[in-house]
Amino acid sequence: MSPAAQGADPAEGRKLAAQCKTCHGLDGIAKIPIAPNLAGESQMYIEKQLKAFRSGKREHEMMSLVARNLTDQQISDLAAWYQSIEINAKMPE
Amino acid sequence: MSPAAQGADPAEGRKLAAQCKTCHGLDGIAKIPIAPNLAGESQMYIEKQLKAFRSGKREHEMMSLVARNLTDQQISDLAAWYQSIEINAKMPE
Repeated sequence: MSPAAQGADPAEGRKLAAQCKTCHGLDGIAKIPIAPNLAGESQMYIEKQLKAFRSGKREHEMMSLVARNLTDQQISDLAAWYQSIEINAKMPE
Repeated sequence: MSPAAQGADPAEGRKLAAQCKTCHGLDGIAKIPIAPNLAGESQMYIEKQLKAFRSGKREHEMMSLVARNLTDQQISDLAAWYQSIEINAKMPE
């Protein structure tokens, strides 16, 4: 698991993630099937998706609203939080 | 973890996922930071994203190519495979 990018604060991200947990879970395991898991996602990937929702390059009725007012710092902190969550996967036999 | 949707075959999806594993890993834990983890994602979410890449509603230089020729059945099988992978997450203290 890579460390948070320069200037990103996972602890701050954890606070911000309170607004995300209804769909994505605070631990990043999605609570509803239309939402993706975010646990252990790379900071780079999450930042790219949040910025795409913010700019409109990617659209979703909920995420476009959520991302609209996020600052770059908030996006980095949220991404650092989800990246900091350790996940492991067990494939079926 | 919900069972595979009607008609979707995770075993077939596992075979298909051989073409996805370079970036996403066969177990769905991404191997490169620009790719998301797919392990344990809901079938609904993965189907929606693959169909969006196939239709052009969502764009990515790699995924738009990969999804272009996938059939609905292949999409369901791939989604069922990744949904069948068990994940758990451990938040930092």
